[in-house]
Amino acid sequence: MTVDAHQATLRAILGRIGDKWSVVVICRLSDGPRRFNELKRLTDGITQRMLSATLRHLERDGLATRTVHPTVPPSVEYALTDAGHSLHEVLAQLVRWTESHVDGIQRSQETYDTAARR
Amino acid sequence: MTVDAHQATLRAILGRIGDKWSVVVICRLSDGPRRFNELKRLTDGITQRMLSATLRHLERDGLATRTVHPTVPPSVEYALTDAGHSLHEVLAQLVRWTESHVDGIQRSQETYDTAARR
Repeated sequence: MTVDAHQATLRAILGRIGDKWSVVVICRLSDGPRRFNELKRLTDGITQRMLSATLRHLERDGLATRTVHPTVPPSVEYALTDAGHSLHEVLAQLVRWTESHVDGIQRSQETYDTAARR
Repeated sequence: MTVDAHQATLRAILGRIGDKWSVVVICRLSDGPRRFNELKRLTDGITQRMLSATLRHLERDGLATRTVHPTVPPSVEYALTDAGHSLHEVLAQLVRWTESHVDGIQRSQETYDTAARR
């Protein structure tokens, strides 16, 4: 596998996934379109500002769309694009991997830290 | 999918993947054990300090092992554990996804930025 080729973009995407709320928001959108306030309510602990920034990044990367419905007041709806859905499939595997390894990782960390204190 | 359950650990792991050199180092170790200096030479742009920190994190998480061979001078060899190899399989898919979407993402970013300047 070549990781050098698109390393900068790869690291930028991985960095965004890790640092921000993208994984959670992509998962929340995986079942279908959501309004901003729904997403906010469904995503425990996220601030309005962080949710806006995350959605803007996803839109800029072509992973989500933003649709303004001309209701009164206007409602704004977000949805995954095809690329967003395909990323969700890969991320879901990473989430499942993590969930099935979290206990082992925690045990390993405890063992490592105990040995390091000796 | 529940992302809330192990969210802290999940985000810690995803954060480590994104922020540091873990993905690259895991890929470098996926073909078999490597000595520190080999890894350093194979990993363009990584500093000795960052490589040490990355390997220490992988060892602490139980994803890589560190073996000291009693040669003169001692040689230190790193290898992926079974958990490390299974993470590599998932990461390889994320890398492949990114490689096949990098052009689309860059085009989308250009379109978005052009529209934003209007």
